[in-house]
Amino acid sequence: MTKPRDIAVIVGSLRRESFSRKTAHALAELAPEVLALELVEIGGLPHYNQDLEESLPPEWAAFRERVRRADAVLFVTPEYNRSVPGVLKNAIDVASRPYGKAAWQKKPGAVVSVTPGRLGAFGANHHLRQSCVFLDIPMMQQPEAYVAHAGDLFDEAGRLKNDSTRNFLAGFMTAYADWVEKILRGSDALA
Amino acid sequence: MTKPRDIAVIVGSLRRESFSRKTAHALAELAPEVLALELVEIGGLPHYNQDLEESLPPEWAAFRERVRRADAVLFVTPEYNRSVPGVLKNAIDVASRPYGKAAWQKKPGAVVSVTPGRLGAFGANHHLRQSCVFLDIPMMQQPEAYVAHAGDLFDEAGRLKNDSTRNFLAGFMTAYADWVEKILRGSDALA
Amino acid sequence: MTKPRDIAVIVGSLRRESFSRKTAHALAELAPEVLALELVEIGGLPHYNQDLEESLPPEWAAFRERVRRADAVLFVTPEYNRSVPGVLKNAIDVASRPYGKAAWQKKPGAVVSVTPGRLGAFGANHHLRQSCVFLDIPMMQQPEAYVAHAGDLFDEAGRLKNDSTRNFLAGFMTAYADWVEKILRGSDALA
Amino acid sequence: MTKPRDIAVIVGSLRRESFSRKTAHALAELAPEVLALELVEIGGLPHYNQDLEESLPPEWAAFRERVRRADAVLFVTPEYNRSVPGVLKNAIDVASRPYGKAAWQKKPGAVVSVTPGRLGAFGANHHLRQSCVFLDIPMMQQPEAYVAHAGDLFDEAGRLKNDSTRNFLAGFMTAYADWVEKILRGSDALA
Repeated sequence: MTKPRDIAVIVGSLRRESFSRKTAHALAELAPEVLALELVEIGGLPHYNQDLEESLPPEWAAFRERVRRADAVLFVTPEYNRSVPGVLKNAIDVASRPYGKAAWQKKPGAVVSVTPGRLGAFGANHHLRQSCVFLDIPMMQQPEAYVAHAGDLFDEAGRLKNDSTRNFLAGFMTAYADWVEKILRGSDALA
Repeated sequence: MTKPRDIAVIVGSLRRESFSRKTAHALAELAPEVLALELVEIGGLPHYNQDLEESLPPEWAAFRERVRRADAVLFVTPEYNRSVPGVLKNAIDVASRPYGKAAWQKKPGAVVSVTPGRLGAFGANHHLRQSCVFLDIPMMQQPEAYVAHAGDLFDEAGRLKNDSTRNFLAGFMTAYADWVEKILRGSDALA
Repeated sequence: MTKPRDIAVIVGSLRRESFSRKTAHALAELAPEVLALELVEIGGLPHYNQDLEESLPPEWAAFRERVRRADAVLFVTPEYNRSVPGVLKNAIDVASRPYGKAAWQKKPGAVVSVTPGRLGAFGANHHLRQSCVFLDIPMMQQPEAYVAHAGDLFDEAGRLKNDSTRNFLAGFMTAYADWVEKILRGSDALA
Repeated sequence: MTKPRDIAVIVGSLRRESFSRKTAHALAELAPEVLALELVEIGGLPHYNQDLEESLPPEWAAFRERVRRADAVLFVTPEYNRSVPGVLKNAIDVASRPYGKAAWQKKPGAVVSVTPGRLGAFGANHHLRQSCVFLDIPMMQQPEAYVAHAGDLFDEAGRLKNDSTRNFLAGFMTAYADWVEKILRGSDALA
C-alpha cells in the first residue's frame, strides 16, 4: 500500500471545547485512507516579530519544520470579527517567513470554516483564501465548506450527531484527497 | 506538435484604448507556443436576468459556448471602485448559469489586474478570485500580476515599451502554461 | 412636519420575482416616516465604457442625476458568484464617473443582502462595502442585514409572512434612519 | 480650550524599526491639536482563548479598558500575507469580547496601511475594514491611506524625509479629525 499523504491540520481556535477542533477530529476520522491528518498546535507560537528571526524562538522553528514536512495543509477555523482569528493568522505569518521561504508553498490546501452562528464563517473562509494566494497554496475551490449551527452538531463526546453532516464532511475529504493528488501528480508530470 | 491549449481571454474594460486590452494583446504575443490566446468579447452581453433563460439571448448562448469550449481562462482587468468592473462581473454571471452548469467549471484560471494608478488594481484582482472559488476555477496563485502605472507602459502602437514589463509578463505566461498543464494532467491522472 | 429624507434604493436583481425587490418593498413599508424610499431602476443602463462619456447615454445621465439628488442610498442585493451582481456593479460604476465626481459621495449608505440560500449573501454584502470606501459612502456598520432562506419569507402577494423578519427589518430601518441623521447632522455641525 | 479627543493608536507590527510605528509617530506629530494620539501596545496580549475569560489575563483587561476609554481609534498597519498581521488581529479579537461588549463599539475609526512594497498594503487595509463592520466602528472612507515604498520615507532618526508624504498625512489627519467630530457630534445630536 502507498504511504498516505501527510496532512497538517491547523485549527483556528484555542478553546478546549472548540467546534473547529471537534470538526477537525471528525474530518480526521472521515478522511479516506490515502490521507493521514495530524493536528498541529499553534497556541504556543509567540507573536510574529521579525526582530526575533535572529534568535529564533524554538516554537517557530518547530512549527515551520512541521509545516514544511507536510504534503498538504487543511485549515479548520472559526470566524472572529468577520475574519480569521488572530491566533491562526499569527501561525500563518510565522510559517510564512523568512521572506521567500514560506513553509506553506505549493502544498495543496483547503479550508473548512465553522461557526455556532448561521453564516458559515464566510468571512474567515475567504480572508484565509486571500492569504493563500500570496503563500502559493493551491486551494481547493469546490466544494466549499461552511459549517453553521455547530452548537447542534456534536454529542457530549464531541462526535457528530447526524448523518447529513457526516456525509457532507466525508464527501469534502474525498474531494480534498482528489485535489491533493491532482496537484501533486500534476506537479510530478511537469517536473 | 501537440495542439496548443485554447485560452479564453476575458478583458474587463470596453474602452477602445483600454490598458487591459493592450496588456491582453501583449500577453498573447508573449505566451509560450503551447498556449493559444483568444480575446472573447463581453460588451454585447445583456445584463443577467434569470427571467431571460426562457428565451435565451443569443449573445449569452454564444458566450457560454465559447467559454465551455476553452481549455482554460485568463482574466485581464482594470479596477472600478475597488472591485471588478460591472461589465466583467456580468460576463462571469452570464456564463455561470444555469445554476450548477457554469461554463467556467474546472478550467485553470489566472488574473492580471491593470491600472494607470499605483495600487495594481488589487481590489479587482482579489474580488475576482472570490468569484472563482464558487465557479470552481482553480486559480494560479503565484506569481500574482498587478500591472501599475499602465499609462507609461505602452507606445503609440499599443506595444510594451520596456523589457522589465515584457519579461515579467512573459514569465507570468510561462508559469500560467505550467499551471494549465498541472491541472489538466493532474485531472487526467485521476480520471 | 420635516420633509422626509429622500432614499434612493438600488436593487441588485432584475428578475421579476426577485427576492431582493420584495425585500426592498418591505423595507419601504417598514421604514419610519422620516425616510421616503424610492426604487431606482438599473436594468436599462448600458455597460460602462469611458468612451461613451463624450456622447453621454441619456440613461446614464438620468441615473447619475437621480442618485445625486438623493439624501442617502440603500442597496438591496442578491449574491452572484460570491460577489455583487454585474448589473448592480455596473450601476455603481456608471454613477461613479466622471472621475472625482461620483454621484454617491458622502451619502449615508447601508446594504441588505438577500438570498434563498443560507449564507446571507455575505460575499455580495462585503464586496459592495469595499466599493463604498472608494465612493466615500459612509456605511452603517450595525446592524448588518443578511436575509437568508428568502424563498420562505414572502407570501404570494410578495408580502412578508412572519413577524420576526418584519421586526428585524423594521429595526434595521430605524437604525438606518438614525445613521442618516447622524451623518447629515454631523456634517452640518462641522460646516 | 476644549479637551482634545483621545485617539488610541494601534500599530500592527512589533518590529523595533517598524515602518508602521514610524508612520504612527509621524501621524501623532502632524495631527491637529484637537486630537491627542497615544500608541497602545499589543505585543504582550496573550492569544485570544475564550476559556481564559474566567481568569482574565491582566493584559487583556488593561487593553480593553484602554480602548474603552478612547474617543476614537486609529489603526496603522503593515500587510502580512495579503491580510492583517496576526498580532493586530489578536488585539482586535481580545478587545472584541466578551461577546456583545466590544470595547471598539461606536468609536470613529480610520486605517493607514504601510508597506516597503508598492501595493500600499491594500489587503490589510480592507480586511481590517471588514472586521470594523462587525465591531460597529464607523470608518472614515476617504481619503484612503496606502503608504507604499516606506523604506524610502524616513531618515535615520525615523522622521519623514519629504514634504509630499508629510502633506498627505497631515491632510489625512485633518480629515480624520473632521470624521471624529462628525460622528461624535452627530451622535450627540441624536441622543
